[in-house]
Amino acid sequence: MIGIAVLGAGRIGKIHAGNVAANPRARLIAVADPFAEACEPLAAKHGAEAMTDPMAAIVRDDVDAVVIGTPTDTHIGLLMKAVELGKAVLCEKPIDLDMGKSAEAAAQVEKLNGRVMLAFNRRFDPTFAEVRRAIDAGQIGAVRQVVISSRDPGMPPEGYVKSSGGLFRDMTIHDLDMARWLLGEEPVTVTAMASRIVDEAMVEKYDDYDTAMVILQTASGKQAHINNCREAVYGYDQRIEVLGETGMLTHDNLRPTTMRLTTAEMTDAQQPLLNFFLERYTAAYRAEMDAFVTALADGTALPTTAQDGVQALRLAEAALQSVRTGQTVSL
Amino acid sequence: MIGIAVLGAGRIGKIHAGNVAANPRARLIAVADPFAEACEPLAAKHGAEAMTDPMAAIVRDDVDAVVIGTPTDTHIGLLMKAVELGKAVLCEKPIDLDMGKSAEAAAQVEKLNGRVMLAFNRRFDPTFAEVRRAIDAGQIGAVRQVVISSRDPGMPPEGYVKSSGGLFRDMTIHDLDMARWLLGEEPVTVTAMASRIVDEAMVEKYDDYDTAMVILQTASGKQAHINNCREAVYGYDQRIEVLGETGMLTHDNLRPTTMRLTTAEMTDAQQPLLNFFLERYTAAYRAEMDAFVTALADGTALPTTAQDGVQALRLAEAALQSVRTGQTVSL
Amino acid sequence: MIGIAVLGAGRIGKIHAGNVAANPRARLIAVADPFAEACEPLAAKHGAEAMTDPMAAIVRDDVDAVVIGTPTDTHIGLLMKAVELGKAVLCEKPIDLDMGKSAEAAAQVEKLNGRVMLAFNRRFDPTFAEVRRAIDAGQIGAVRQVVISSRDPGMPPEGYVKSSGGLFRDMTIHDLDMARWLLGEEPVTVTAMASRIVDEAMVEKYDDYDTAMVILQTASGKQAHINNCREAVYGYDQRIEVLGETGMLTHDNLRPTTMRLTTAEMTDAQQPLLNFFLERYTAAYRAEMDAFVTALADGTALPTTAQDGVQALRLAEAALQSVRTGQTVSL
Amino acid sequence: MIGIAVLGAGRIGKIHAGNVAANPRARLIAVADPFAEACEPLAAKHGAEAMTDPMAAIVRDDVDAVVIGTPTDTHIGLLMKAVELGKAVLCEKPIDLDMGKSAEAAAQVEKLNGRVMLAFNRRFDPTFAEVRRAIDAGQIGAVRQVVISSRDPGMPPEGYVKSSGGLFRDMTIHDLDMARWLLGEEPVTVTAMASRIVDEAMVEKYDDYDTAMVILQTASGKQAHINNCREAVYGYDQRIEVLGETGMLTHDNLRPTTMRLTTAEMTDAQQPLLNFFLERYTAAYRAEMDAFVTALADGTALPTTAQDGVQALRLAEAALQSVRTGQTVSL
Repeated sequence: MIGIAVLGAGRIGKIHAGNVAANPRARLIAVADPFAEACEPLAAKHGAEAMTDPMAAIVRDDVDAVVIGTPTDTHIGLLMKAVELGKAVLCEKPIDLDMGKSAEAAAQVEKLNGRVMLAFNRRFDPTFAEVRRAIDAGQIGAVRQVVISSRDPGMPPEGYVKSSGGLFRDMTIHDLDMARWLLGEEPVTVTAMASRIVDEAMVEKYDDYDTAMVILQTASGKQAHINNCREAVYGYDQRIEVLGETGMLTHDNLRPTTMRLTTAEMTDAQQPLLNFFLERYTAAYRAEMDAFVTALADGTALPTTAQDGVQALRLAEAALQSVRTGQTVSL
Repeated sequence: MIGIAVLGAGRIGKIHAGNVAANPRARLIAVADPFAEACEPLAAKHGAEAMTDPMAAIVRDDVDAVVIGTPTDTHIGLLMKAVELGKAVLCEKPIDLDMGKSAEAAAQVEKLNGRVMLAFNRRFDPTFAEVRRAIDAGQIGAVRQVVISSRDPGMPPEGYVKSSGGLFRDMTIHDLDMARWLLGEEPVTVTAMASRIVDEAMVEKYDDYDTAMVILQTASGKQAHINNCREAVYGYDQRIEVLGETGMLTHDNLRPTTMRLTTAEMTDAQQPLLNFFLERYTAAYRAEMDAFVTALADGTALPTTAQDGVQALRLAEAALQSVRTGQTVSL
Repeated sequence: MIGIAVLGAGRIGKIHAGNVAANPRARLIAVADPFAEACEPLAAKHGAEAMTDPMAAIVRDDVDAVVIGTPTDTHIGLLMKAVELGKAVLCEKPIDLDMGKSAEAAAQVEKLNGRVMLAFNRRFDPTFAEVRRAIDAGQIGAVRQVVISSRDPGMPPEGYVKSSGGLFRDMTIHDLDMARWLLGEEPVTVTAMASRIVDEAMVEKYDDYDTAMVILQTASGKQAHINNCREAVYGYDQRIEVLGETGMLTHDNLRPTTMRLTTAEMTDAQQPLLNFFLERYTAAYRAEMDAFVTALADGTALPTTAQDGVQALRLAEAALQSVRTGQTVSL
Repeated sequence: MIGIAVLGAGRIGKIHAGNVAANPRARLIAVADPFAEACEPLAAKHGAEAMTDPMAAIVRDDVDAVVIGTPTDTHIGLLMKAVELGKAVLCEKPIDLDMGKSAEAAAQVEKLNGRVMLAFNRRFDPTFAEVRRAIDAGQIGAVRQVVISSRDPGMPPEGYVKSSGGLFRDMTIHDLDMARWLLGEEPVTVTAMASRIVDEAMVEKYDDYDTAMVILQTASGKQAHINNCREAVYGYDQRIEVLGETGMLTHDNLRPTTMRLTTAEMTDAQQPLLNFFLERYTAAYRAEMDAFVTALADGTALPTTAQDGVQALRLAEAALQSVRTGQTVSL
């Protein structure tokens, strides 16, 4: 049994705590959050200990691994502490909003042979994982083009925008990781455009954007496109498409049920999409935790690394630079 | 070139005349209809001769084949005349609303080695023909169950109901032919229920029904189900499904375009179905005429026979008898 | 908190025990099964007591309700015991394979004001429940026709067939309940056909069938069709369609993921369906338990009753009688 | 009746001649092509005159309008001749592969008040036209993002690549017109990437590409993405998606039939897409001719202009320049 402490008792911490508790090879030891009102009920629900000092949770002997779901600016401190103590880490992305600090932390993790898995939850979504598996199984031959549509159901609140690091570092970064993962090769050129058409006044205030399109290309000529918008009234739109030499992989979005309504005005109308990431990626979060625990229990390699986080952030920075300079950025 | 006269210049006659005119191996010689106002413009449009006496059209030397699209009670007279003169016939169904007369006519046709093709247009629909082809190609193994949903967009006018011969002889008959064709075996038992829930007052007046369900079974145990309703507000609903030993064949209904609308209330909503048979089976009517002309030009067997018309009518009679007696009818 | 004992630690008992344990308003007190090897690990997993005597579990003071997932011939004994002791019951269907005994038990339950919910799991499937909700919300107007396709992925083992009570009592019964529920009116006539085309030798041995079609009609003329086959190579096929006065409701089957594969030979191919009921109805079993616990905790009416079980069995008997007699059976 | 001469009796000339002949308000006067073997049978088939000198066809008194389907380098000569003589023109795109010449010709057409319609056939596709209509009807609010996937079924022959003007001028140009049309605003910035991964050796020989991605942005911040590949083994892939403020429009590709095959390995597999543009855009070509003839007959504005051709070519040039320079190109 892997003893796990979940650091951070917010929205994502609750998901992780529940998944640890339900995992047959893991034991939820502690939930740590400076806000006792947040960690106490969560810990109680799963029979774990509530702690207000995350650092104290990391050092416990019965804690083999930590899950970091705290505010972004605390990630590196907690991550490095855990690595230094030889604890495994599942860390929410990004490592840090600053590229330099992220890269330095990732390098340090490698130097220390730290076991760190960046929480790119989408890679564990059953459908997306099946797409990757189908590529690996040769079902569409060599990958040529990847098209990723990724749109939020609505503008986040202003406070979120302010501290998010901007559209590319906050939202596109997930799609950039997905693009890297599906291309199977590192992109070497990035070009992007971004605009403000959902809530111009608000995003301009923070020198941010609400709508963007990106193109990536690898050295061998494989391409990926990403389109993002902060608002899609029909729900959280998450689609990938992979064109290969001998075929193509696509998939449907998820809805609450599969019901279809037909009337005199329209036929086979389906329900709006699942609203946002907590609902859409429920199975992905569970599978992500399973992958983490399984790798630890079996002593196998973790499926993602801190470097994955650095590389996705590097692409996000490049996309932003491309928007600002009107240049295609080479990496 | 096969010289063809189209008898009847109504809705279906227009379709047939157009398809004859467009067929590269056929020539439209004449359009005959007692109503000069109907046949003249149609004949003129296609450079054919307008005639008000269908019998006169049949006897013409330059007429090799006739297409009968006149009122049902004139079918047998025209059909037999043509057969006696050695002309080939494409005859709209039914041969006659009376089972005995139909059977007698079909027997007579056989005796005279008449070349008569019953116009079961649906067999020529590209999708349905592809389903039959896939079965023949072994793509789903031996057929086990056929499910046919067949619903009109709305109640026909009272005058139509009055002279239609009733739901089973007028509407279900198409589905019964489809069932026979897809089962690949003759049904030996029929059971059915029928009711009046669309326009009870009107259909009751003619001792008719507006809603029905039928089950057929062959000697080897293959089954077919048909459901009919005179009103489906979303358009002309025409679906078949074939379950086989190693797979299943289904298909989509047809719409004016393939556009899908997604809003905050619904996703991927498609347009209403094509409204009725003239739109839905445009390609089928053309392919039916092609099949008729090709068989005549190449001297090969016609794809349907007068006996197909008799057999479908026999099943319609049996279904009606089952409704009236509460018995499963054996054939 | 509702204290619950799960009786029977087989396949379905495991599902129920897990759902009780996960339910925030219930507590799993005991798992009872004469086979200690079955109930002990299951009880241990959920921190409950293992008991080899189901009757002893029923009488415990801390047990407010029991879930009966034992072999069918033990249902009535356990059910009546629980009812007599004032315990609520969630009972797997059927109450009994014998119509008379079932009806008598249901009558007795009513007389004692017993709180008994028959486990018609499908009513709780999120999609089917949404269909029912849409009907209730008037989205398709008055119901006219219901079409139910329900096919197992493959023939059950011979031992199962032998003791199943036959296709109609074992398999069709679920669809008959679904038909009643969707029609919203009691069927008054039943006609059916059945055959042996999947494994003739085996099913004939037990005077059973492997393939069937049924039609039901209500007094007002609403109709339902059911088609069943013991083998559908593409997975567990569970579809309902409801035609109403102003629209139609349909839905998609469920697959492991929503991936679609496109190659030179085919486009948008989806995965085989979820294999069987445990996978297909995972969410339904959970929702069923939630509905049971919620009704008990809130003191509201249970969503299904013992009479629902009797009525579905009555329809199954009528369908079988129709097959055997060639008569439409009136109820 | 509009008297029309079709110039060019190749693949596209045949389509246009057939559509003119079938149009009730037009008359096919002549088919002109220097190759008598090409124009004679085509003219004969439709009862028109065969001419080997296109210029001679233009000057005929009975010719009101010409359709130019000749090799690209003859377009401007024929076009200007017709305009000078006051004849209306439906001209296949591009006007010319050279941007300067194209712009000059378009300017000259405007100066002369020439009635010239550029044959952007896709705008007349029933589904795409319905998408545009839905936007105009306000069904998705203001347009925000357009995503166009446009892939050929396979590499064209080397001779075609050699004289095509390159991927952007030959293939992307259609999608650039579609993007302009759907955005409803002129793009002001263009960025693109292109690569050689289908047939590197061949396309490199002509300094061309076989795979490309483009992003366009308008002054108000609306965006469009185009992805192109010269080879999609599953057929001619032609998809558009429009995200708006209050909804989204998508559509399905077209296949020969709507049949779906389900087996033990896959469910609901559809047929490969219609293979290429002649099949895929059959209805579009017919509607394009109808629009041309209707505008002439009614004296209304032509739906596309020579400037549309210039603008699409300008965007194609900009995309190519972006690939070559690594810069986002501003227009």
